Amino acid sequence: MQLRELAEKLRCRLVGDGEIEVHHLASLHEAGEGDLAFVVNPRDLPKLEASKAAAVIIREGSPPCSKPTLLTNDPYLAFVQALRLFYTPDRAMPGIHPSSIVHESVRLAEDVAIGPLSVVEADVTIGRRSVVGAQVYIGKGSRIGADCRLYPQVMVREDVEIGDRVIIHSGAVIGSDGFGYLRDEQGVRIKIPQVGRVILEDDVEIGANVTIDRATMGATRIKRGTKIDNLVQIAHNVVVGEDGVIAALSGISGSVKIGDRVTLAGQVGIVDHVEIGDDVTVGAQAGVAKRIPSGGVFLGSPAVPHLAFKRSVAAVNRIPQLLMALKRIEARLASLEGAIGKRRDTPPPPQSVSEAGPR
Amino acid sequence: MQLRELAEKLRCRLVGDGEIEVHHLASLHEAGEGDLAFVVNPRDLPKLEASKAAAVIIREGSPPCSKPTLLTNDPYLAFVQALRLFYTPDRAMPGIHPSSIVHESVRLAEDVAIGPLSVVEADVTIGRRSVVGAQVYIGKGSRIGADCRLYPQVMVREDVEIGDRVIIHSGAVIGSDGFGYLRDEQGVRIKIPQVGRVILEDDVEIGANVTIDRATMGATRIKRGTKIDNLVQIAHNVVVGEDGVIAALSGISGSVKIGDRVTLAGQVGIVDHVEIGDDVTVGAQAGVAKRIPSGGVFLGSPAVPHLAFKRSVAAVNRIPQLLMALKRIEARLASLEGAIGKRRDTPPPPQSVSEAGPR
Amino acid sequence: MQLRELAEKLRCRLVGDGEIEVHHLASLHEAGEGDLAFVVNPRDLPKLEASKAAAVIIREGSPPCSKPTLLTNDPYLAFVQALRLFYTPDRAMPGIHPSSIVHESVRLAEDVAIGPLSVVEADVTIGRRSVVGAQVYIGKGSRIGADCRLYPQVMVREDVEIGDRVIIHSGAVIGSDGFGYLRDEQGVRIKIPQVGRVILEDDVEIGANVTIDRATMGATRIKRGTKIDNLVQIAHNVVVGEDGVIAALSGISGSVKIGDRVTLAGQVGIVDHVEIGDDVTVGAQAGVAKRIPSGGVFLGSPAVPHLAFKRSVAAVNRIPQLLMALKRIEARLASLEGAIGKRRDTPPPPQSVSEAGPR
Repeated sequence: MQLRELAEKLRCRLVGDGEIEVHHLASLHEAGEGDLAFVVNPRDLPKLEASKAAAVIIREGSPPCSKPTLLTNDPYLAFVQALRLFYTPDRAMPGIHPSSIVHESVRLAEDVAIGPLSVVEADVTIGRRSVVGAQVYIGKGSRIGADCRLYPQVMVREDVEIGDRVIIHSGAVIGSDGFGYLRDEQGVRIKIPQVGRVILEDDVEIGANVTIDRATMGATRIKRGTKIDNLVQIAHNVVVGEDGVIAALSGISGSVKIGDRVTLAGQVGIVDHVEIGDDVTVGAQAGVAKRIPSGGVFLGSPAVPHLAFKRSVAAVNRIPQLLMALKRIEARLASLEGAIGKRRDTPPPPQSVSEAGPR
Repeated sequence: MQLRELAEKLRCRLVGDGEIEVHHLASLHEAGEGDLAFVVNPRDLPKLEASKAAAVIIREGSPPCSKPTLLTNDPYLAFVQALRLFYTPDRAMPGIHPSSIVHESVRLAEDVAIGPLSVVEADVTIGRRSVVGAQVYIGKGSRIGADCRLYPQVMVREDVEIGDRVIIHSGAVIGSDGFGYLRDEQGVRIKIPQVGRVILEDDVEIGANVTIDRATMGATRIKRGTKIDNLVQIAHNVVVGEDGVIAALSGISGSVKIGDRVTLAGQVGIVDHVEIGDDVTVGAQAGVAKRIPSGGVFLGSPAVPHLAFKRSVAAVNRIPQLLMALKRIEARLASLEGAIGKRRDTPPPPQSVSEAGPR
Repeated sequence: MQLRELAEKLRCRLVGDGEIEVHHLASLHEAGEGDLAFVVNPRDLPKLEASKAAAVIIREGSPPCSKPTLLTNDPYLAFVQALRLFYTPDRAMPGIHPSSIVHESVRLAEDVAIGPLSVVEADVTIGRRSVVGAQVYIGKGSRIGADCRLYPQVMVREDVEIGDRVIIHSGAVIGSDGFGYLRDEQGVRIKIPQVGRVILEDDVEIGANVTIDRATMGATRIKRGTKIDNLVQIAHNVVVGEDGVIAALSGISGSVKIGDRVTLAGQVGIVDHVEIGDDVTVGAQAGVAKRIPSGGVFLGSPAVPHLAFKRSVAAVNRIPQLLMALKRIEARLASLEGAIGKRRDTPPPPQSVSEAGPR
C-alpha cells in the first residue's frame, strides 16, 4: 500500500515521500526494508534513524525525522489500525467441506464456511459470513450469529446461543455440564441435571481451552464485548457483564454475578454466589471471597482493597523493626527499674521477646 | 407429567389439584405457566404467589399456598429428582457412525453408540449402553465400562481403564505422559518413559479440559464416585480416594495420595509426594506443602489449619495497633526517664519505631 | 532381553546369572517373576529379598544380594535407561491415513506418519520420521521438524515453527491469538491483530491442554530443551530460555523474557513484561511481579527471595508473642509510674493494646 493512501485511511498527517510502498508492519527493531514501524515512547526516537524501516508512525510534535513519517496523537492506535488493514484473517471459502457431517436440518445463512471434519448437529443455525474451522463440534439446537469465527477443534454443546462477531479459539468448550451434586437420603452424591444454557453475546472473544459450563437452569451469560483469555473456567449460572476482561487461568465459581467493565487479572479466583459491581479491577492471583461493590482495585487472597493490601504487606515488613524497638524499650525499662529498684518489691523478670524464636 | 404421578415418584405429599400437567421445571422467578418450581429458603415463600409456576415443591410445615403443592422434608432434593425424571440426556442411537474409524479388534457390548469422526484403536472394549460422542479418540487396549458417557472431543490414550457410569466431558485428556525427566551423566535432561496406566473407577465424573497423566509405572487412580471439575491437573501416580470433590483449576502433583471424601476447592495446589488423609477439606487457592492427617479444614499457602490461618490474618491486621501501642509506651518511657533523669548516666536516644518507614 | 545384554547396554557391572531373561520393568513392590526392579534408597534394600523381581539394579557398594544384580553408581538413571530400551513408543506405520485431509502442497519427508481424521493445511512441511496422531490440525505454512510426535487432537495454527524431536501432548493449542486489545478514540475495545508466530525449538516437550499464543508481531519462542507441563498458559511474545521446566497450571503473561535453566513450580504466575534471569527457581503458587536477576529461589505472591519469604512467615508467627511482650512491658511501665507517680503531673492512661480486638 502507498504511504499516502495509508495516511488517509489512518487519518495521520504525512510528512515526506508519500509515494513509497509499504509492504509489511513491524516493530522498530525488527523492521526491514519496505516495513512501516512506529514509536510510542520518546526514548525510542533515537533508534529511529538506525532502523531499516521505510517509514514510521510517530507522535505529533516529535522532532523531525529523515524517514517518511505519519504523525498522529496516538501512534500505537494508528499502528494497530494499520495492522487491521494489512492483516485480515484468511477469508475461508464459503461452503461446507465434504468431509464434515452437517445435519440436514441445519440452517446456514449466506457465505458461511465450514471446514473439514466438523460435526454440526440438528437444528443448528449459523449466521452470515461466519467461519467454522476444521474439527469443530456444534451441538443440537445451538445458534451462532453472523461474522463469527470458531477456530479448529472448538466444542459447542447443545442449546448454546452465540451472538454476532464472536471469536472462539481452539480447544474451548462451551456448554459443558455445571459441576453440581446433591446428597440423597442415603448420603450418595447424585448429579444435578444441568439443563440450562450458555449465552455469549455480541463481540465476545473466548480464548483457547477455556471452559464455560451451562447453567443448571436458566443461562450462564457472557455479555457484549467481554474478552476472555486462555484456560479460564466459567462455572454454571455465572453472569459476566459487558466490556470485561478476564485474564488466563482465572476461575469463576457457580452463580457469581460480575458487573460491567470489570477486569480480572491472571489466576484470579472468585468463590460461588459472590457479586462484583461495575468497574472493579481484581489483581493477579487474588481470591474474591465476598461481595465487592462498584469500583476499586482489589488484591490478595482473600482479596481486600489495594491500599489495605499494601498496608498489610508493609506491616509484615515492619515486624523485624518492631522486634528491635521492643528490645530497646526493654533495655530502657530495665535501666529505669534499676534506677528506682530500691523502692519496688517484685520486679517482673526481664524476659525478652527478642530472644524467643519463632514457633 | 401429571402432578399426582410426580408426587408418587418423588414420594412427596400432594396438596391441591393433582390432575394438572407439569411440562417443565424452573426456578421460582423464571417459572412460566405449566412449570413446576421449588422453594428452599422460607424467605422466598412470599414470592410464591406472584410466580407464574403451575405448582411448587415446598417444605413440610410451610404455610399453605394457593397453588397445587408437593410437600417434602427436602424440597431441593425432590426438585433435583424431578429434574432427573424430566431431563434424561439424549439417548444416542446405538451403533457406529460410518465416518468413525473403529479397529476391527474392538469389542463393543450391546447398545453402544459411537458418534461421527471418532477413532477407536485396536483391542479397545466398551461396555453396554456406553455413549462415545463425536470426534473422540480412544487409544489401543483401553477398556471402558457400561453406561459411560464420553462427550465429543474427549481423548483417552492407550491402556486406560474406565469403570461403569463414568462421565468424561469434552476436551479432557486421560492418560497423557507424566511429567518426568532425569539428568544423565552429561547433565542432559532425558525423558523418563511413562509406561503406567490411568484407572478411573465407577461413578467418576471428569470435567472439561481436565488432564490426567498416566503413571510412570503402575497406575494413576481416581477412585469410585469422585467428581473432578474443569481444568484440573492430576499428575502421574496420583491416587485420589472415593467420593472426593476437586474444584476447577486445582493441580495435584506427582505421587500425591489423597484419602476418601476429600474436598479440594478451586485453584488448590498440592506438592508432589504429599499424603492427605480422609475427610479433609482444602480451601480455595490453598497450597498443601506437607502431609495432612485425616479430618480438618486447611487454608492458605502454605496451607495451615483454618483456625491458624484466621489467627494469622487477624495478627497481621493488628500490626498497626501494635505500632500505636509502641508509640504510647515510648512516650511513657520518655516521661519516666525525664522524671528520674538526674539519677541516670546515659539515657538511650528516644528513637521511635513509629517514625521509621517500611523497608 | 538377557540380563547380560542389558548390563552391557546400561554399562552396569553384572553379578550373578547373566543368562536369565528380563521381560518387564517394575518398581520393587510391584515386580513379578521375570521383572527387573531397582533400589535407589538403601532403606529399601531389606525389601529386596522378599520382592518377586528376577533381577535388580542397585548401587555399587551395596551389600550382596541373592538375586542377579546390575551394579552402577546411579541405579535410577540406569533403570530409566532400561525403561527407554524396553518401552519405545509405538512406531506408527509411515503414511497418511486415507481419512485425513492433507493439502496437495504439503511436503512430507521420509517415514512420516499421519493418523486418521487429521487436517494438514497448505504449505506445511513435516520432517523425517515425525508422527502426527489422529484428529490433529496443522495450519497453513507451519513447519515441523524431524522425529517429532504430535499426539491425537493437538492443534497447531498457521505459521508455527517446530524443531526436531519436539513432543506435543493432546489438546495443546499452539499459535492461538495473543490477548491484545486497544481502546479507540470512542473507547471501544478493538482487537490488535496477532500476526506473529510461535517457535518451539528442538527437544521441547509441551503438555496436554497447554496454550501458547502467537506473538502480536515477531515470535513467541520456547527455546531448546525446555519442558512444559499440562495446562500451562504462555502468552504472546514470551521467550522462555533453554532447558527450563514449567510445571502445571502456571501462567506467563505477555512479553515476559525468561532465561536459561529456569524452573517454575506449579501454578506460578508472572506479570507481563517482566524479565527473569538464568538459573532462577520460582516456588509453587508464587507470583512474580517484577524483574528477577539471575539465580536464586523465589517464593510467595508477590514473590521474594526464599529467605525473605521464610522471615515473613516467621515474623507473622511471632505476632502473638509480640502482643504478650507488650502486655508485660505495659505492666512494668505501670509499676514504675506508680513508684514515682508523685513526681509526675499527668500520666497517660494505661490503655493496653492487648485488650483491643482485631479490626
